[in-house]
Amino acid sequence: MLPLLTLTTDFGTRDSYVAEMKAAVLSLAPGAHLVDVTHDVGAHDVVEAALTLEAAAARFPAGTVHVAVVDPGVGTARRGIVVTARGQRFVGPDNGLFTPFLAGEDWRAFELSERRWQAATVSRTFHGRDVFAPAAARLALGLAPDRFGPAVDDPVRLLWPEVLEGPRRVAGVVLHADRFGNLITSVGAATLARLGTPLEIAIAGRRLPLVGTYGDLARGRLGGLVGSRERLEIVVREGSAAAALRARRGTRVLVSRTISRARRSRSSTLRSLPRY
Amino acid sequence: MLPLLTLTTDFGTRDSYVAEMKAAVLSLAPGAHLVDVTHDVGAHDVVEAALTLEAAAARFPAGTVHVAVVDPGVGTARRGIVVTARGQRFVGPDNGLFTPFLAGEDWRAFELSERRWQAATVSRTFHGRDVFAPAAARLALGLAPDRFGPAVDDPVRLLWPEVLEGPRRVAGVVLHADRFGNLITSVGAATLARLGTPLEIAIAGRRLPLVGTYGDLARGRLGGLVGSRERLEIVVREGSAAAALRARRGTRVLVSRTISRARRSRSSTLRSLPRY
Amino acid sequence: MLPLLTLTTDFGTRDSYVAEMKAAVLSLAPGAHLVDVTHDVGAHDVVEAALTLEAAAARFPAGTVHVAVVDPGVGTARRGIVVTARGQRFVGPDNGLFTPFLAGEDWRAFELSERRWQAATVSRTFHGRDVFAPAAARLALGLAPDRFGPAVDDPVRLLWPEVLEGPRRVAGVVLHADRFGNLITSVGAATLARLGTPLEIAIAGRRLPLVGTYGDLARGRLGGLVGSRERLEIVVREGSAAAALRARRGTRVLVSRTISRARRSRSSTLRSLPRY
Repeated sequence: MLPLLTLTTDFGTRDSYVAEMKAAVLSLAPGAHLVDVTHDVGAHDVVEAALTLEAAAARFPAGTVHVAVVDPGVGTARRGIVVTARGQRFVGPDNGLFTPFLAGEDWRAFELSERRWQAATVSRTFHGRDVFAPAAARLALGLAPDRFGPAVDDPVRLLWPEVLEGPRRVAGVVLHADRFGNLITSVGAATLARLGTPLEIAIAGRRLPLVGTYGDLARGRLGGLVGSRERLEIVVREGSAAAALRARRGTRVLVSRTISRARRSRSSTLRSLPRY
Repeated sequence: MLPLLTLTTDFGTRDSYVAEMKAAVLSLAPGAHLVDVTHDVGAHDVVEAALTLEAAAARFPAGTVHVAVVDPGVGTARRGIVVTARGQRFVGPDNGLFTPFLAGEDWRAFELSERRWQAATVSRTFHGRDVFAPAAARLALGLAPDRFGPAVDDPVRLLWPEVLEGPRRVAGVVLHADRFGNLITSVGAATLARLGTPLEIAIAGRRLPLVGTYGDLARGRLGGLVGSRERLEIVVREGSAAAALRARRGTRVLVSRTISRARRSRSSTLRSLPRY
Repeated sequence: MLPLLTLTTDFGTRDSYVAEMKAAVLSLAPGAHLVDVTHDVGAHDVVEAALTLEAAAARFPAGTVHVAVVDPGVGTARRGIVVTARGQRFVGPDNGLFTPFLAGEDWRAFELSERRWQAATVSRTFHGRDVFAPAAARLALGLAPDRFGPAVDDPVRLLWPEVLEGPRRVAGVVLHADRFGNLITSVGAATLARLGTPLEIAIAGRRLPLVGTYGDLARGRLGGLVGSRERLEIVVREGSAAAALRARRGTRVLVSRTISRARRSRSSTLRSLPRY
């Protein structure tokens, strides 16, 4: 059986583009098992695509091939790359899409420059169909990543959302507001564990409790919890935290061990958090 | 070949959640054939999900596994269940999602309590990925439903949309407005047949004819017909009945054998129809 | 392995209709490999569906079965047809959906009149599920197209978007605004090549350059280029040409070899282009 092959794009689902990519894959690898991650990433939003792919990819079996195309630079000199990391393979433009998989030393990258693995005719505006889909199909069929071109040791990395950690507090940002209005933050579960308890969360001028799960909140109440990505999420039980707080990607969040200290030092800590 | 496995959720298609569920299924059952019913159910709308799944499930081959996750109660004490009914299997939260399949005596249900069939780590906010998807995969692989936990003889049932039948009239409600604005009602084809002819439909202050199909209506005209779910639908040929009548789920509809009697008794009949 | 089977509809993704069609296919052909082209065509928009299918179908392997259902005439006397063209098969209502594949002599069409290849019960409002999906499944399983009914030599054709060509200019129209706001026009790459260079584009009161790819434009600037469908597209680099020009399907576009002559003859040429 061929490995799984996932697709992540900002193409939407109304145009023919996604089907054209799938046709390109299936023409080369007829037995490929395709799974859509999403095609509804905000147009040209490389950060959102990288965050979504990070959340999804970890769940797929080793060997899965992930092709991701959010490509505002198509038709410029930007490279195409294949990245191997964490036992999986990633194919797409070298524009930061794969930043989450380029941490540490456990990755390799190669440029997609070998002409013979591309479509016979390569459109200058649709490398998803003519370069990335054929490369993904060939990876699925067993072609080694280093066959596509020279090694790349400086793949583009996004300035990635981070946290600033102090001994009793941590400052982070909202990464993503999901369909339900849950606010997924850059603060990981391990960071929260290091802070100890009790904790208090400050966001958008509100102070919220940290709870274990939705059931610990009354309906319609705001709180923080460790969500399914092992990150702090700000939620409303059966409601939208994004709407309640008018918060979105980039909104700052502060988690503090004690109320009094948090109040004193809050503004200075937040100010020093790098923007992204 | 493994049985088909369908997915019905309110997760939307922009976030990574659907892909995370599919990854969980495919990690356990790599050859599973997945079919999306929908991921665009209104957020937390258990009734809509149940109605959509009812319409879709009947069309799938015997043995199909349907996993449905509209789960406002995740992170509370609500149970997870597997239901077998009508030769098919259903997996999801025990919150009424499976009401349409719990009529009569031809069903069995079991709690999803056996820890070993769940993910190694179970998120308290995403049982779709960590409990229901693994259970669905294992059902597809042949695990017997009673292996998941104790029998459940009181699964949660929604107060289900009904009709009130009299000898010459029937009162029902709109169940769903579809993408085209067709209004699918709780009045079944068999009920209409019992009433005989001619019939007249009253909805939203309008009186409409019952016709055989779209072609019997002039373009832009309102009418009722028996739709593809074997239910009375209120339609506009090449237009939206929902928009024309400002109707939606819950809007009442009355079908009468004769005009004069219907006019006299209409309001009293409608008043006694239970709300849902 | 069974051939690929694609689906193109205006059913949206919220209702159960697409799943009902897939269930009908998979009940007959359990191993069929289904690929969605789109289900988000504008409701009843046969032209959009035909254009999208034209762009997608060309990319699929020979033998692929394409079922397309945008069917405002369901429940009228309109025929169902199967078309074979360009090595592929198409199934759906005979309402012009397949116009792009009916050019030249290289096609055959047959009516879907043979009752035995339809569902046991055929809804008068959902031939997608009860007529077209079963026919597509049987084509995928190897049934010959002429087994479905008598040959059709006059399939319905849409008045198809065209160009008017002069020796130094060509007048066309916008066919489609895609998700990014790119305007895909009826002017083909071969037509542009015949005109020679330099070329100038006039649309919505603006004069734009013809460039090679996005990278030749400054960010936010308008231009024309040959897109991935081998057609002239009007684009904004990292922006929406549809929004910038308030243009949409039907907006006229003129490409001229020289500025002075174009200016003189522009309005008369445009006036004689047939509407569609």
